[in-house]
Amino acid sequence: MMTGEEYKKSLFDGRATYFAGEKVDDLPGHPILGSSVQKAADGYDWMIAHSVNGESPLKAIPTNGEELRQKVDLVHQSGMISHVTYTSIMTLETVAGRIKDTAPQYIEPMKAFIEEAQRRDIRITQCITDAKGDRSRPPGKQDDPDAYVHVVSRQSDGVVIRGAKLHITGASLGHELMTIPTKAMKAGEEDYAIAAMIPVNAPGVKIINTSYAPRHHDLRDFPVSGADNYPEGFVIFDDVFVPNDRIFLNGEVSQASVFAHSLGLWERLGGLSGLADGADLLVGLAQLIAEANGLAGEAHIKEKISEMIIHATVVRACLEACLTHAEVGPFGAAFPNELYTNAGKYTGAANFNLMVRHVHDIAGGAIVTAPAIADFENPDVGHLARKYMAGRSDVDGEYRTRLFHTIRDLTADAYGGWQLVTNIQAGGGLYAQRIVTRKHYDLDRAKAMALAAAGLGENPNH
Amino acid sequence: MMTGEEYKKSLFDGRATYFAGEKVDDLPGHPILGSSVQKAADGYDWMIAHSVNGESPLKAIPTNGEELRQKVDLVHQSGMISHVTYTSIMTLETVAGRIKDTAPQYIEPMKAFIEEAQRRDIRITQCITDAKGDRSRPPGKQDDPDAYVHVVSRQSDGVVIRGAKLHITGASLGHELMTIPTKAMKAGEEDYAIAAMIPVNAPGVKIINTSYAPRHHDLRDFPVSGADNYPEGFVIFDDVFVPNDRIFLNGEVSQASVFAHSLGLWERLGGLSGLADGADLLVGLAQLIAEANGLAGEAHIKEKISEMIIHATVVRACLEACLTHAEVGPFGAAFPNELYTNAGKYTGAANFNLMVRHVHDIAGGAIVTAPAIADFENPDVGHLARKYMAGRSDVDGEYRTRLFHTIRDLTADAYGGWQLVTNIQAGGGLYAQRIVTRKHYDLDRAKAMALAAAGLGENPNH
Amino acid sequence: MMTGEEYKKSLFDGRATYFAGEKVDDLPGHPILGSSVQKAADGYDWMIAHSVNGESPLKAIPTNGEELRQKVDLVHQSGMISHVTYTSIMTLETVAGRIKDTAPQYIEPMKAFIEEAQRRDIRITQCITDAKGDRSRPPGKQDDPDAYVHVVSRQSDGVVIRGAKLHITGASLGHELMTIPTKAMKAGEEDYAIAAMIPVNAPGVKIINTSYAPRHHDLRDFPVSGADNYPEGFVIFDDVFVPNDRIFLNGEVSQASVFAHSLGLWERLGGLSGLADGADLLVGLAQLIAEANGLAGEAHIKEKISEMIIHATVVRACLEACLTHAEVGPFGAAFPNELYTNAGKYTGAANFNLMVRHVHDIAGGAIVTAPAIADFENPDVGHLARKYMAGRSDVDGEYRTRLFHTIRDLTADAYGGWQLVTNIQAGGGLYAQRIVTRKHYDLDRAKAMALAAAGLGENPNH
Amino acid sequence: MMTGEEYKKSLFDGRATYFAGEKVDDLPGHPILGSSVQKAADGYDWMIAHSVNGESPLKAIPTNGEELRQKVDLVHQSGMISHVTYTSIMTLETVAGRIKDTAPQYIEPMKAFIEEAQRRDIRITQCITDAKGDRSRPPGKQDDPDAYVHVVSRQSDGVVIRGAKLHITGASLGHELMTIPTKAMKAGEEDYAIAAMIPVNAPGVKIINTSYAPRHHDLRDFPVSGADNYPEGFVIFDDVFVPNDRIFLNGEVSQASVFAHSLGLWERLGGLSGLADGADLLVGLAQLIAEANGLAGEAHIKEKISEMIIHATVVRACLEACLTHAEVGPFGAAFPNELYTNAGKYTGAANFNLMVRHVHDIAGGAIVTAPAIADFENPDVGHLARKYMAGRSDVDGEYRTRLFHTIRDLTADAYGGWQLVTNIQAGGGLYAQRIVTRKHYDLDRAKAMALAAAGLGENPNH
Repeated sequence: MMTGEEYKKSLFDGRATYFAGEKVDDLPGHPILGSSVQKAADGYDWMIAHSVNGESPLKAIPTNGEELRQKVDLVHQSGMISHVTYTSIMTLETVAGRIKDTAPQYIEPMKAFIEEAQRRDIRITQCITDAKGDRSRPPGKQDDPDAYVHVVSRQSDGVVIRGAKLHITGASLGHELMTIPTKAMKAGEEDYAIAAMIPVNAPGVKIINTSYAPRHHDLRDFPVSGADNYPEGFVIFDDVFVPNDRIFLNGEVSQASVFAHSLGLWERLGGLSGLADGADLLVGLAQLIAEANGLAGEAHIKEKISEMIIHATVVRACLEACLTHAEVGPFGAAFPNELYTNAGKYTGAANFNLMVRHVHDIAGGAIVTAPAIADFENPDVGHLARKYMAGRSDVDGEYRTRLFHTIRDLTADAYGGWQLVTNIQAGGGLYAQRIVTRKHYDLDRAKAMALAAAGLGENPNH
Repeated sequence: MMTGEEYKKSLFDGRATYFAGEKVDDLPGHPILGSSVQKAADGYDWMIAHSVNGESPLKAIPTNGEELRQKVDLVHQSGMISHVTYTSIMTLETVAGRIKDTAPQYIEPMKAFIEEAQRRDIRITQCITDAKGDRSRPPGKQDDPDAYVHVVSRQSDGVVIRGAKLHITGASLGHELMTIPTKAMKAGEEDYAIAAMIPVNAPGVKIINTSYAPRHHDLRDFPVSGADNYPEGFVIFDDVFVPNDRIFLNGEVSQASVFAHSLGLWERLGGLSGLADGADLLVGLAQLIAEANGLAGEAHIKEKISEMIIHATVVRACLEACLTHAEVGPFGAAFPNELYTNAGKYTGAANFNLMVRHVHDIAGGAIVTAPAIADFENPDVGHLARKYMAGRSDVDGEYRTRLFHTIRDLTADAYGGWQLVTNIQAGGGLYAQRIVTRKHYDLDRAKAMALAAAGLGENPNH
Repeated sequence: MMTGEEYKKSLFDGRATYFAGEKVDDLPGHPILGSSVQKAADGYDWMIAHSVNGESPLKAIPTNGEELRQKVDLVHQSGMISHVTYTSIMTLETVAGRIKDTAPQYIEPMKAFIEEAQRRDIRITQCITDAKGDRSRPPGKQDDPDAYVHVVSRQSDGVVIRGAKLHITGASLGHELMTIPTKAMKAGEEDYAIAAMIPVNAPGVKIINTSYAPRHHDLRDFPVSGADNYPEGFVIFDDVFVPNDRIFLNGEVSQASVFAHSLGLWERLGGLSGLADGADLLVGLAQLIAEANGLAGEAHIKEKISEMIIHATVVRACLEACLTHAEVGPFGAAFPNELYTNAGKYTGAANFNLMVRHVHDIAGGAIVTAPAIADFENPDVGHLARKYMAGRSDVDGEYRTRLFHTIRDLTADAYGGWQLVTNIQAGGGLYAQRIVTRKHYDLDRAKAMALAAAGLGENPNH
Repeated sequence: MMTGEEYKKSLFDGRATYFAGEKVDDLPGHPILGSSVQKAADGYDWMIAHSVNGESPLKAIPTNGEELRQKVDLVHQSGMISHVTYTSIMTLETVAGRIKDTAPQYIEPMKAFIEEAQRRDIRITQCITDAKGDRSRPPGKQDDPDAYVHVVSRQSDGVVIRGAKLHITGASLGHELMTIPTKAMKAGEEDYAIAAMIPVNAPGVKIINTSYAPRHHDLRDFPVSGADNYPEGFVIFDDVFVPNDRIFLNGEVSQASVFAHSLGLWERLGGLSGLADGADLLVGLAQLIAEANGLAGEAHIKEKISEMIIHATVVRACLEACLTHAEVGPFGAAFPNELYTNAGKYTGAANFNLMVRHVHDIAGGAIVTAPAIADFENPDVGHLARKYMAGRSDVDGEYRTRLFHTIRDLTADAYGGWQLVTNIQAGGGLYAQRIVTRKHYDLDRAKAMALAAAGLGENPNH
């Protein structure tokens, strides 16, 4: 297993990565991106500390709902970059199960890659969303044929691809880019039906990074995002060669959507468990600040917190149900139930804004106007800031201020904005989640129940 | 086991029951109430048909989540009057487990009654909601002391009670009234801390019935409520004597709320599973009528049905979670998890109106303007009604009309109105369900998560 | 001006109207429909009592927003049948203004008809919604060409039409049927671009009636719908001849949608003002029952009523804005502003279900379980019903019971169901109202504001 | 009239103002606060450019709804610091009208101050929200008596006050602090019933500033907040002397709430017009980005934009209604109608989060992942960023990127978070707005309508 320090060194591999218009040559030492590199390094050390028989605790594939639940918790603890790596591995496992009859030739390279990745202990990010150009047209009908990643030339030993993949969290922090089609493809779009594993430092790969990391001098006012932030990668494949053994799909248009659906399932499971924990966290903050304000006993405050609790519980119920009804694939790996995963992900994302509104409504304007921690240290006003930020008599002004900063950081600043957007967009926007839920719902049973009620058929439940 | 016919005869026991200002002497033969008596009788025959070793299939107490799930389904199939009987029995089981240390003297009479009830194969309804008078005052502070059922005199062999219990579904169709305190009581309210089992035909018991049963000549326009309706009983205890062996609480104010909480749990489980099935039914109707109208492919129709599907799935996820996390009491009986049961019941009830709005929005005005089935038989206009009520070319006009009648009956007529109200009120109104959910949520863990995010404590999940 | 008695006699004109499978020969004497005839007759007498210089108070055409507001109030007071008559007249006025350049040949017959109608003092209902068959196909592409009303033969002195019009409130109670295209027509659909005024007793006209009127013996339990109910007409044109001077459109497909849009504006204005008053009424009922229950001071009750108040105020604000910004057409008639009318109608309809949920949540289960008024007169239980239905000590049991019956009748019984559906469907379903609002919103100005914010243009507001 | 340059010089008056732990001696030159000083200076120059007869265009008091509407627009254009100054002046006008009988001794000093302020052409900010300590206790029952601003000593020529005022937008940029009680006071709280005008540079005044201004090197990625941001002031009165002629309330507890209510009305009017414009802006952004993405014709996108349009229209309808029903006070000044102002402010704020969700759902993840403008200038990747950020073929990649930055800046970054919080909290949180709306609604009329419907009274509308 790699150590955190080894990981940091591994990033000096010639990769072409950019930030705010400048090329970044020293990722670990970069003023904005450096802290995310450190978090990824910490994840490596966490793995070693939690290793089982010298192996990553994430290595074993879950075979039932209970193991799946434990894995979800472990993955969350190990940090974002481990998370996306695990998601990539599980996506390949899921794909392998689903294409075993239709495109069996790719199972071997996938399995080989998984083994190698676990042996090298590398980090992988999943590259799915294309640039897309005019979204009303399919890949093959774009004015710019590069709007979707595609094969531009074919050689005996591999292919050359061109295009871009967007919103790739942590792309610059990993070693490999799991590049897969963003959607179903049709006949004539064979060049777009390409899935491959591409090293971050492959010639032609260029990554533009953006980050919600605070630019402030004093990160104490950012208790959450100050240390825990990740860059988003805009990954450009500017004619990149892919050798044959790293190609996992190559022209089989009928199988193109299997990758996205498989990844989507795992992304939504990660999203769902994140939303369940995130909802509990917002409940906790709402309750703490209500107590600090002396308002925890007010009827309208309690009503709002009760609504938040019900939301948090309902999202968790979906997580429970998708694990209870986990399904086991042909190679023995357990998958979360699609119906409950998607309905839960949708519900958590669709109501997240209301949760945020409740927290803002309960806490008060000091979310965005509380003094900085540094103000508490100023000899002229520090003691006055402490005095006037105090709430209930046993509540210290700085303690209460730190709660406000946490709420602001989580819900009303750069990181909070990133959350608002990505909660909705992860796994494809509310519309996509509605479609997938509908697809997995037993509509025939519902119709049979309706016909029975109308006296036009038998009740399918009796 | 009693047959349906024996059951009908058993109702001629001198009970004092009223409808629309008149005393009802022949319940089975009553023009409005008769159909509900027949449904209860059918429930008896269903029990015999489904009996296990000559015993009711409902008799065995579930000991884990899976048995609980099967029981919930069985109870639904056996009809409303069996349902409330089962709820009563399970409530007594739950109470017995909860008061075994605090009021053990009542366990023996409860157990004896359960045994007798199962032997006599009788039907029991639960009487909880009092008249309540001025709802801003507790039972002991009312101008009219009878606003809550209470003991008005005590004798060596029993007590005499006075008061009224409202919204008692099927009260006139059962044999015993399980009368319990509606809420917690305080010192000084000992006379109100009374729980007892009272025969429907006990002297002093008077029941005023109301019913949403259709009054129309032709019940074919009411495919749901035409046959499946139940009277609500306004049960008056006009100085009723209760012998000692039928008293299950008598003055122990600290135990008064145990009954309501125990019943509430079962009512909400019944409510939750009913809401889950009901939501699926509305999805089915929405889809069928959209297909009949030729609009099942319209984007905005699909969006609405997808929203309905997500709601139905989320409610069912709560049902799944409350069964997965079922708890087993001291006497071995399994109980649904309180947190998920209440959050699910709340969610199902709170959004039911929106589900109804979607069905009305999707289906169209013919819900309330479709011709009667009898119009299809009129020689002047029958063929024209059929012609013009047709939808997509393969959809017969009468079939489509029957769907509209079903939607109207279920959501936009007397029974639909009863549903709108009782979905909200069963188990105590949305406010009560918020309180109970909040009570069972792990707020301390949520607060610890929030403190950890603020850098003020350890994360309880790691 | 006609008296109520003269009006009743006028209905014996040979019309073919049906109810529950039977032909109705005596409308005023019909057990279900009779009460609606009486209401229409009362409307005639009201007109005489409020006549101005011997003319109907509704006759003058409003020329500005303030006159329009007064007219809206007057029309509401005069009853449903006057309402639809007024809407018909105003629709013709609006159409005349809109087609004066494109189809001027119809202005003369419309004006002549309006004059005649006012002179004869007749009642008119508007027939718009067709049977529609497969809603995914246009009128000209149906398997059954009669799915939309159309001309089946043309003669020198007129045309013969066939088809059906649905959801025609009060069709059997009026004298003329204002029959207009339900939507825009395209080239090739000339036969469907037909608008005409057709006497109810014209040969070939057949009307099937439905009604939410209570079928109960004792209408005292139906304080709203017991007397104030109207039949919905399913109007069939079974080859009906229309003379030339009663044809208002005949083949000009480009003008077909003008009628529906013009009627829609007035329907939505009527709907909007009805929703504003209806919302106030629900607020009042919620407050009265909360007071009667002794709960008007409870925080969560006050919160819910405040939400209802805000909804009622917002709907009324839209009504105010559509009158403030009334537009005056080429012939001097004032029209409500389309944008605010539609946005208000949508908002009022979309949130009506939530208002109903709040009333049900606040009031309690007695909405559907309160004893009948007749029960209060029964010597055995009447005094007990009164005693136990009492609320706060100064609140009589029968008074409180009447409030519950009013809430049930308005929101949780046949009339309440009719309201739920028609609030949504009047003016065409929520989807239609969204489209119309969007059409009248100044999207270009909003885009210019957005470009200015992006630094890509000038702010249009400065 | 003062010029922008004169204004900047006027800030060097010895004021004690702090930022991030440091005292700020040069406000115009401060790296973060400087841009807001410049905006305030620009506001001065705007006034001169728009002056009428050498006087500020804001000077005249509106006397009817139409003048009020024009003033609202002018005030918005003149910038935030002019806005709060105008609000302060109008608040004093409103207070003067309301206390003319109950505390007439303060009218003279208020009028004198208004005249002086207009002559000196100064800027005023309103200081209302106190530190509040334990919010469950009133000012007089706090452990720290300074939790609310109060008089700590009284002299013949004035009083000395102590306490803090929070969330004072632009406090450090004005010349005077209009300090008023935050709520109603009771007998015994006379020292807290203090209103006064206090110079920013008065000895003892200390202001801690916070700001959502971007800290990034390149402000081009912040098209909205890069230039248009304002600091929030945490204003401390550390024993500040107030001379008698600047005291506007001094111990008259019964009048304490008049100030807050008067200010609240103007704040909510400003809030309401800001929400109406802000909603239109979000509609415009949603439509522009949908067009750029090529998705403006997608049904679900159109549905979401239509919902946004309806929201924007409803908020504007409330603005229209509060102006149409403007009321004129005893001194001739026009005030917006309280009922519609509050209902509109509530509706706009309560649904703002949903509007933001729709924009995020429509636009996509590039809101938070689009490359920086600087990336477009990098020779390695600039052309690729432009290529892959292009949307519909006629949509340039940088144009589309700027739209994303605008959406992020407005809704998903520091300024967006500030908006989320302040939209809710301005004018006192959703709860406060519910209470005020309820207070101004005609509940008696609604109850009379309900009694009439129940057959228990006359309809008040007839």
